[in-house]
Amino acid sequence: MSKVSQKSFKRGYAVMKKMGRETLMLDQKANCPDMYDMSVAHLFGDVWGRPGLSLRDRQLVTLAANIALCRPRGNYSHYRSAMHIGITKKEINEVIIQVAHYAGWPTLSLANHQFSEVLKEQRDHKRGKNLDRPLLV
Amino acid sequence: MSKVSQKSFKRGYAVMKKMGRETLMLDQKANCPDMYDMSVAHLFGDVWGRPGLSLRDRQLVTLAANIALCRPRGNYSHYRSAMHIGITKKEINEVIIQVAHYAGWPTLSLANHQFSEVLKEQRDHKRGKNLDRPLLV
Amino acid sequence: MSKVSQKSFKRGYAVMKKMGRETLMLDQKANCPDMYDMSVAHLFGDVWGRPGLSLRDRQLVTLAANIALCRPRGNYSHYRSAMHIGITKKEINEVIIQVAHYAGWPTLSLANHQFSEVLKEQRDHKRGKNLDRPLLV
Amino acid sequence: MSKVSQKSFKRGYAVMKKMGRETLMLDQKANCPDMYDMSVAHLFGDVWGRPGLSLRDRQLVTLAANIALCRPRGNYSHYRSAMHIGITKKEINEVIIQVAHYAGWPTLSLANHQFSEVLKEQRDHKRGKNLDRPLLV
Amino acid sequence: MSKVSQKSFKRGYAVMKKMGRETLMLDQKANCPDMYDMSVAHLFGDVWGRPGLSLRDRQLVTLAANIALCRPRGNYSHYRSAMHIGITKKEINEVIIQVAHYAGWPTLSLANHQFSEVLKEQRDHKRGKNLDRPLLV
Amino acid sequence: MSKVSQKSFKRGYAVMKKMGRETLMLDQKANCPDMYDMSVAHLFGDVWGRPGLSLRDRQLVTLAANIALCRPRGNYSHYRSAMHIGITKKEINEVIIQVAHYAGWPTLSLANHQFSEVLKEQRDHKRGKNLDRPLLV
Repeated sequence: MSKVSQKSFKRGYAVMKKMGRETLMLDQKANCPDMYDMSVAHLFGDVWGRPGLSLRDRQLVTLAANIALCRPRGNYSHYRSAMHIGITKKEINEVIIQVAHYAGWPTLSLANHQFSEVLKEQRDHKRGKNLDRPLLV
Repeated sequence: MSKVSQKSFKRGYAVMKKMGRETLMLDQKANCPDMYDMSVAHLFGDVWGRPGLSLRDRQLVTLAANIALCRPRGNYSHYRSAMHIGITKKEINEVIIQVAHYAGWPTLSLANHQFSEVLKEQRDHKRGKNLDRPLLV
Repeated sequence: MSKVSQKSFKRGYAVMKKMGRETLMLDQKANCPDMYDMSVAHLFGDVWGRPGLSLRDRQLVTLAANIALCRPRGNYSHYRSAMHIGITKKEINEVIIQVAHYAGWPTLSLANHQFSEVLKEQRDHKRGKNLDRPLLV
Repeated sequence: MSKVSQKSFKRGYAVMKKMGRETLMLDQKANCPDMYDMSVAHLFGDVWGRPGLSLRDRQLVTLAANIALCRPRGNYSHYRSAMHIGITKKEINEVIIQVAHYAGWPTLSLANHQFSEVLKEQRDHKRGKNLDRPLLV
Repeated sequence: MSKVSQKSFKRGYAVMKKMGRETLMLDQKANCPDMYDMSVAHLFGDVWGRPGLSLRDRQLVTLAANIALCRPRGNYSHYRSAMHIGITKKEINEVIIQVAHYAGWPTLSLANHQFSEVLKEQRDHKRGKNLDRPLLV
Repeated sequence: MSKVSQKSFKRGYAVMKKMGRETLMLDQKANCPDMYDMSVAHLFGDVWGRPGLSLRDRQLVTLAANIALCRPRGNYSHYRSAMHIGITKKEINEVIIQVAHYAGWPTLSLANHQFSEVLKEQRDHKRGKNLDRPLLV
């Protein structure tokens, strides 16, 4: 029995591809396929795939929520997908500065660190370095 | 001695006026004028007043951070200022739905409640009702 | 266009009835019907309605998560539905004590206050008092 | 069977009296006497009553933690007990400003509001007003 | 002078053994013996050791609280002790899915990652690999 | 154009030197010089540099806020600067114990771990070991 709608799953996967995220969340698939299916179908298909707000706006507010919550995992990938869909490095830094004033200075410190690591990862990849390392998540 | 820069204070106050927020934070002024000065000059002058991100984008990411953090106070006013600068009711509802999936369902419940209260406050004001009540903060 | 699956919606509504929650979340319906549909179909239908964990266990872990997060809204109703499905007052107090040691003493203070308010609401209803007040959410 | 040590309970109650907090937490006693006993004996007896840090320092760091966590309940009383043991209004405002920069601007807004309410409560009491209202918690 | 009750300490240590946790928290003992004593006697003796809720229920709600709070440390060990007392892998995955909908999708991502690491640690130990590595905490 | 006041920047840098923090936050400078300037001028110059509360008190409440918020980054350095300005190891352990009871036991676990790492870093440095490793942040 497949618990999620195939239509939602396909729409979700399409959104993920557009954002360069199609190789992510595979550890969910390995441990618990239902989790992966819900992440693709419900989160990316039924939420990110909704009309009413541009993909850019959804990415900006998601970055903001994640920076504010300052969790140890789950934000690196959004710096990458933000740049993938055309949000500039400068804009991301402004999002960090803006959110940090609502969530506290250490959120600026963590966000700057995580974003810097993602930029380094991309520079490395351009030079053919560390291509076998798992992407930052 | 004035501790904040007059230039920053003026820029901050101008941003606040543009957002319809110039009558807010007066309880800070009453209890501790320095707090109010820092809020106007540092938060609105030096942060909201920065170039590099549109006012609409700053408002969207601020709404998102505040919805995610789910604090008891400090978010009502941002629903009001978001609409004041042209963000639609429908867009705000999409921000709530998007952020709630990153911050948890009860953040949807609180945000929907707070936004509904702000919409009711505005309907009341249009009908000349409850004009003397302090604005929701 | 209905965005959520009717099957999920029905399953979710059935779970809500079993928990005595079928009159909740109507402020979502009033402000944004899509939010309500997602809450019923996705949260109650696709999550609460999953096999693999008893309804009692799902209610206990949901209470625990909400007590820990200490949000201003969204937990009163879970004390009510917990008792509706047979979790005792004593067990709920033990959940509060247990979680408070992982989330901090003020979460005990808030949870004890909210649970006491729900118990008072139920005593009032038994005596025919305050029947027209909106249920605590 | 009494589950907490009487020695700890007495030490805790003595600390609470020194801080002007001896009439608080009675809603815990009403709903679940064990919670109250643990709050008095463990929190105030075994933690607040420890040597190694002055009462003033313990109060300052407790205020700071509570301001940072921005919970809807449980902080009003600490503004009152802080002043009861001699921390000045000006020092409390500085704590709010300092912590807010580590926890985000809305924590300043909530803390300023709660502290202002406590100051108003005390002015009212001096004038014999609202003496029958429950103390802010 | 021993500050915690020996009776509570013994009861706590017995609970820890039952849960397979008796080798944990030794870094607390190394840095500050009082912290370790309080953790064993107060947390495990006076809270986990209380009647009124089964050990399984206390473990489920503790897992839920910790998943919800999404802290960088302190949850790995609870996946291990949950399995030690008989909670199945499948049930733990359901707890993760349930809580994540109340605390936000990145809490699912972190919990799935941490639980997967614990499962890998156990597979390694069965094969005699990495036996000298400190247990995940 | 320099966006921050030179006076504030100088005052902030002087505070940072007093606290032994002058080599920190250089990753901010590398990624986004404005962030660094704001951190020095606004956070250390305009907040830490304020009168009305001693440097020791500001350090204690900052430690407390950071321990309570339990973020993955940004607290190691405050254990170091606390000791740099004369707060003892014993006092820091008491701050951890006090705050943990308001923020939850896992915050004790994380704080004890981070503080232990900082103490180890200092022992290593005294013995001339690991001098080239980046300081814990």
